[in-house]
Amino acid sequence: MSRIAYVNGRYLPHARAGVSIDDRAFVFGDGVYEGLEVRGGKIVDLPRHMTRLRRSLDLVRMDSPIGFEALGFVLREVVDRNRVSDGFLYMQISRGAAARDHAFPTKPTKPGLVVTVQAFDRTARDKRFTEGVAVITRPDERWAHPHIKTLQLLPNVLAKQAARERGAYECWFVDTQGFVTEGASTNAWIVTRDGVLVTRQADDSILRGVTRTTLLDAIAASGRKVEERPFSLEEVHKAAEAFFSSATTIATPVVRIDDHRIGDGRPGPVTRDLLENFHRHAAT
Amino acid sequence: MSRIAYVNGRYLPHARAGVSIDDRAFVFGDGVYEGLEVRGGKIVDLPRHMTRLRRSLDLVRMDSPIGFEALGFVLREVVDRNRVSDGFLYMQISRGAAARDHAFPTKPTKPGLVVTVQAFDRTARDKRFTEGVAVITRPDERWAHPHIKTLQLLPNVLAKQAARERGAYECWFVDTQGFVTEGASTNAWIVTRDGVLVTRQADDSILRGVTRTTLLDAIAASGRKVEERPFSLEEVHKAAEAFFSSATTIATPVVRIDDHRIGDGRPGPVTRDLLENFHRHAAT
Repeated sequence: MSRIAYVNGRYLPHARAGVSIDDRAFVFGDGVYEGLEVRGGKIVDLPRHMTRLRRSLDLVRMDSPIGFEALGFVLREVVDRNRVSDGFLYMQISRGAAARDHAFPTKPTKPGLVVTVQAFDRTARDKRFTEGVAVITRPDERWAHPHIKTLQLLPNVLAKQAARERGAYECWFVDTQGFVTEGASTNAWIVTRDGVLVTRQADDSILRGVTRTTLLDAIAASGRKVEERPFSLEEVHKAAEAFFSSATTIATPVVRIDDHRIGDGRPGPVTRDLLENFHRHAAT
Repeated sequence: MSRIAYVNGRYLPHARAGVSIDDRAFVFGDGVYEGLEVRGGKIVDLPRHMTRLRRSLDLVRMDSPIGFEALGFVLREVVDRNRVSDGFLYMQISRGAAARDHAFPTKPTKPGLVVTVQAFDRTARDKRFTEGVAVITRPDERWAHPHIKTLQLLPNVLAKQAARERGAYECWFVDTQGFVTEGASTNAWIVTRDGVLVTRQADDSILRGVTRTTLLDAIAASGRKVEERPFSLEEVHKAAEAFFSSATTIATPVVRIDDHRIGDGRPGPVTRDLLENFHRHAAT
């Protein structure tokens, strides 16, 4: 079956779906996006993703080309038309196509909307959950607003590539004070030797992950202690466990960071517990 | 006459020229570009733009889909097919189209190449040269590598829009120490009351503008003194003249910065002189 994508009002075969060379996402990275998990055919945590999308649009002063109810319908339709059971649902909104000029288009310009879905290799993911993965670190060199989910992703691209070349799955960014901000496409977490979960507060330096928020619900329900604060690389080295979260990685165990083994080098019980219970706290 | 664009090997009507929704420039801002002036049908400073493009590609580890000689031919062809006398020639190279994954594509992926040209409103530009323009300032919130000419341009977009909303033409970024880095799409210059030209050294904090380099040639030929060093906003306020440079703005006089008038509020003799002599030093 050939994949179907939604592009600016039409459902098209993915392989020949295109956008204008004047689309501002293509020319300036002038767009925002969301990535969602599809699990058993259901879209996970849709309301929280929609809330964040609204916030991203507001912060870059962009509109959605269609109402959010219609957008929800399109997301559902793309999942159904592709008959995806487990996958990654992606939507991207740009400021539309206009003659190249940095400032916003002065003529009325319809924002661009693309929705795609990619079937997910759940076996590969399960292996990462069972064995854990390695993470490298790099200075956080992104722009000042990574809390907005925009297409300013080249530093993330270069970080992910560096990770892959060193046999790692993710790269954690470190700020100028030596504190971890977040991963190139995930939020970063540790579990201290006292069993306290620590993740950076969702200020302007990181993206407020939807999965991060749902994990906080899951942690609260478990009665475990959690601290939202900066944590240093040294704390990661000494942590009992570490993991990262995002819509498709949920709570992927980190067993090595740079040249340091974390804990006993295997996924720990707190991370495993979160992985098992996460979807009971997520909306579907 | 309808505009023609070059897109991945083909010359197409601009209005229906498109790229894949999987193009990494569209999804990640994973691309580099160059903008050149076309003057009397001739491409200005092509060799320096090609040298910089090579450097941008190397720094983000990307290839050109065609050799640079062929690329030069395409640029020429796009100008000719559009019969543009005075205009803005644009070329953009992306890492190509691939299933969304931050790290570089693992399958061989042909980089994407788009070349367009826009006829230029020379009358409007001449008016700016004669009357000068206003500039606003904002903190420099870009990523750590603005010296690479990439598509990470959302901060520039927001800065240009802020400028327009305040009746200004450009926005100059200011670093955390109070020094001007550069404009949202131009390099920044002042002329001190002693007649010394000052522009920031081309380190990692700014783009090494091709026009900036050619202006340095023009200044050297004129026998004027120039200093490449950081300059503060206070120095701008006290300057005799100020201007900004880029392929299409050449040396546009700045007569107001934020709420401060520069010099006597009119374009000064040094800037005028550079404008008159620039093209004698540029390659065509």
